[in-house]
Amino acid sequence: MEGVIQCSANYTPLSPISFLERAAIVYGDKVSMVYGTEKTSWKQTHQRCIKLASALVQFFGISPGDTVAAIAPNVPELYELHFGVPMAGAVLSALNTRIDATMLAFLLEQLEAKIIFIYFEFIEVVLEALNILSDRKGKPPVLQVVLVLIVESDQITAPSILLKETPAGCSLEYYNALLARGRADFEIVPLKNECDPISVNYTSGSTGIPKGAIYSHRAAYLNSLAAIFRSDMRQMPVFLWTVDMFRCNGWCFTWAMAALGGTNIFLRTELSSKPIFDAIYIHKVTHLCGAPTILNIIADAPATDHQRPLPSRVNITVAGALPAPQILMKVTELGFNVSHGYGMTEALGPAAILGPWERRLQYSSKLIMDEQTERIKGREGLHNLIMDGVDVKDPKTMKSIPCDGKTIGEVMLKGNAMMLGYLKNPKVAQEAFRDGWYHSGDLAIRHPDGFVQIKDRAKDIIISSGGEAISTLEVEAVLLSHPKVLNAAVVGRASCDGHLLGDQAPCAFVKLKKECGVCTAEEIIKFCGDRLPKYMAPHSVVFGDLPVNSTGKIQKFVLREKVNIAAGLALQKGLQ
Amino acid sequence: MEGVIQCSANYTPLSPISFLERAAIVYGDKVSMVYGTEKTSWKQTHQRCIKLASALVQFFGISPGDTVAAIAPNVPELYELHFGVPMAGAVLSALNTRIDATMLAFLLEQLEAKIIFIYFEFIEVVLEALNILSDRKGKPPVLQVVLVLIVESDQITAPSILLKETPAGCSLEYYNALLARGRADFEIVPLKNECDPISVNYTSGSTGIPKGAIYSHRAAYLNSLAAIFRSDMRQMPVFLWTVDMFRCNGWCFTWAMAALGGTNIFLRTELSSKPIFDAIYIHKVTHLCGAPTILNIIADAPATDHQRPLPSRVNITVAGALPAPQILMKVTELGFNVSHGYGMTEALGPAAILGPWERRLQYSSKLIMDEQTERIKGREGLHNLIMDGVDVKDPKTMKSIPCDGKTIGEVMLKGNAMMLGYLKNPKVAQEAFRDGWYHSGDLAIRHPDGFVQIKDRAKDIIISSGGEAISTLEVEAVLLSHPKVLNAAVVGRASCDGHLLGDQAPCAFVKLKKECGVCTAEEIIKFCGDRLPKYMAPHSVVFGDLPVNSTGKIQKFVLREKVNIAAGLALQKGLQ
Repeated sequence: MEGVIQCSANYTPLSPISFLERAAIVYGDKVSMVYGTEKTSWKQTHQRCIKLASALVQFFGISPGDTVAAIAPNVPELYELHFGVPMAGAVLSALNTRIDATMLAFLLEQLEAKIIFIYFEFIEVVLEALNILSDRKGKPPVLQVVLVLIVESDQITAPSILLKETPAGCSLEYYNALLARGRADFEIVPLKNECDPISVNYTSGSTGIPKGAIYSHRAAYLNSLAAIFRSDMRQMPVFLWTVDMFRCNGWCFTWAMAALGGTNIFLRTELSSKPIFDAIYIHKVTHLCGAPTILNIIADAPATDHQRPLPSRVNITVAGALPAPQILMKVTELGFNVSHGYGMTEALGPAAILGPWERRLQYSSKLIMDEQTERIKGREGLHNLIMDGVDVKDPKTMKSIPCDGKTIGEVMLKGNAMMLGYLKNPKVAQEAFRDGWYHSGDLAIRHPDGFVQIKDRAKDIIISSGGEAISTLEVEAVLLSHPKVLNAAVVGRASCDGHLLGDQAPCAFVKLKKECGVCTAEEIIKFCGDRLPKYMAPHSVVFGDLPVNSTGKIQKFVLREKVNIAAGLALQKGLQ
Repeated sequence: MEGVIQCSANYTPLSPISFLERAAIVYGDKVSMVYGTEKTSWKQTHQRCIKLASALVQFFGISPGDTVAAIAPNVPELYELHFGVPMAGAVLSALNTRIDATMLAFLLEQLEAKIIFIYFEFIEVVLEALNILSDRKGKPPVLQVVLVLIVESDQITAPSILLKETPAGCSLEYYNALLARGRADFEIVPLKNECDPISVNYTSGSTGIPKGAIYSHRAAYLNSLAAIFRSDMRQMPVFLWTVDMFRCNGWCFTWAMAALGGTNIFLRTELSSKPIFDAIYIHKVTHLCGAPTILNIIADAPATDHQRPLPSRVNITVAGALPAPQILMKVTELGFNVSHGYGMTEALGPAAILGPWERRLQYSSKLIMDEQTERIKGREGLHNLIMDGVDVKDPKTMKSIPCDGKTIGEVMLKGNAMMLGYLKNPKVAQEAFRDGWYHSGDLAIRHPDGFVQIKDRAKDIIISSGGEAISTLEVEAVLLSHPKVLNAAVVGRASCDGHLLGDQAPCAFVKLKKECGVCTAEEIIKFCGDRLPKYMAPHSVVFGDLPVNSTGKIQKFVLREKVNIAAGLALQKGLQ
């Protein structure tokens, strides 16, 4: 069309950095962060992030595309890194604080991290990881790193371990000293392409080694806006940090708070009900989110924690296992609006949402807490504003499955909120992105009303000898409802009784509650048999601890290996 | 970074069409539109738009980039065109319904419109415009157009004029008949580049011939989200259409409503207080916006229109002249939250916003309606979420002016919400976009608190013989406060009393109220002199009607020409 001009006046690469630049002007003196007795304004946060970027570029020679790692809990410094690192043109990888030294060594090497920001509590695991790397033949580049130590402001000295054990080639800095030397008039490194990476977030690794999902500036920008919409946020929310910032960059709420001039409330304690309710009363928290355990913490809170009504209803979004109706009811009664998200690290957080209004939309003009809640408790929500679609498809034909409540397909996603790929793993990403959709690996059905219900992970589903698909999630739900069972997992065990290779029978791994008394495998099998179709009930039960990964997820692949070694051996014998 | 993949799973061109596609799934049965007794769901709206796109492509051979014009008030059909036309790959130009045939002929020719959608009331002006074009030598391409007539559903026959006078080469269709023939399974034309045009919106032409501002899909998408943020909207708002859809595509609320699954309420009457309040009571309207006159309509409403309190507070955004404090107070008392926007067609609507919360942010914890309102009434708001900046700069040095409340600079804007350029006017757009900022032509000062106050249009400001800059807006504000004055405009008159060329004295054009009695020029001049510095008071007063353009804006360039012809002649004599 004649007259079209593209120039810097009408085109800027989308980046969440712009949220902070605007916040410094529009929300200047408003409180950006509260941490204990410390308060910071948006103007100050902006200044500190510029100084941080300046230090990265001017003292350490960080160049566009370099990687900066961080291992820290939800402290203001980690929040600042979310802006300061990309302002230097670099890519942030906030690492899970629960991983061990071996895994950390692997990730630091893969990232080729030039700088590691370390909250003081994690200095030992970082040093251990660096030692693992330097013990290997040839010094990998990851060793030439700068360690930047984050300490609490009321902490006088650093752990003495540092001075003795810092590996050769590594230098040491303190975060605040670094910022003090940064220049306030530093011009941030301009972003050339909005599809350039801003961060790497590792998957939880429940099915093996974590994969580093690369996020672009564009996806981070758009998904921050999506986060605002899915939480029904308005101007200047008060956000309590109960989700880890190392999970999808705090589901992108790190950046979203700057977009809305919100206030970030950081807790200095472990997650428990008292500090949560205290924060709500003192700071008038409007929103929080996290794993479903947050609902249990709130529902189980002693009455002394919440003697007064909440200042206003609090929006709470959880992702992971669907909340039980009675928990949902309790938390709603206490003054919370509960939304449930479906997503993954690859989608930058929740890509679909089921909130009070979606429930209303479907079922009634008010939030219903009875049988109808039961009806929807297995349902996932609908795709958020930035996604093009969350669909259930037959992976062979790529056609959407019918909404008949029984045909199983794979949940697939597409849209601008998806990751760019996996760091140094292009083949795995290409496979996941085949046919223009991200293949989640989750199996699901679709109800006649269009809502999706997850049945199982593709890797976990069991095909019985009769050819029926068994959802291990459904069997586990029954196991968990047994009064003596604390935790349970179900995997397929190759059936060696003459059936075809590939046929499997469900095997249950059960951890019993303490002091539950005697419990036999027969009792468990009968309990399941009374509540499930015969082919779904476990054929065998193994009692004991369950293997979990750093984020608490049960590692089914470990159980599968365990149970199939014997079966595999038996099978091999039969085939010989 | 190794591992980055760009594919259709993680990259989609940004387009507001996606809002409608999602709305059909997420908000399927919810009401999208109310028009009299007619109601439509989002599923139905989506279906109708697909059929419309199908008809455009399959019956009329519309190709990507073709232009489709529309001349209609706020009716559901014009809303559907906002999606259906780009779904066919075409570009929509919704034209001002108040322009005359000569101007319409000019615009249709410039647009090279292939199809014109016409609300039946405007068929005559369209036919007149087409006749103007066909009277010229050589037949311009615009003549080979399809006219699609939009009629009310309770209207049996079309105006008979049609059958007689449709120009040769033009064919005629009815909107609903067209849709009935469209295919529901039509696959919409894929968008290749998000920076491709979606619409052309003409400026009001207060300084001459209207310019066609080209909007991109990307800017429309992002500005729709900005519209949501600046109006503090949440899920499923109820939006009363009191702003014309031909203004910046209804400030992008056309598309924004689909993003949030809102309900569009269309009035079948002229704007007046009774239908507005009725709609608020019946449909529980949450948001409306428009020109500042909407505030006057509401403030002046008879008490019988609003005997009950409103169902909830209604958000109302106005753009144009700043509302007077007493009007703002009255409307706020009636239950409205008033925001004021600063923007222009080139910025897709309001680019900066001053709402209740910004006032709170600056002045107090509650909305203040006294002296402090006075203090801020001249201030514009701060840039919205999608804009990079709204600044006041010295156009020579491009440096921001100091926030001293007196230095005058030009308001400049940049960001993704800006237009792509002017249709067939690349030079004018390049000039406006020079140095990487859009030059608004508005002159302003900046107060120490950072807020911007518009002083005048660059073309309107008067430089006195003493070198002082005189804001004609300020002089007009005093004139309008005179009890006998209905309307007023001030322009500069070249002073011929021995001063340097370029010096000007303010000349006032005044339209008196009916039956106001006698009013002399001396009385007006003294009134201004008592309230303004001496150099600002008008030196001369002309009584009579004021020339206005199609949108009701006073055409100062006409007044300037008028007043300076005599002066120019006198000056020429002196120079000879």
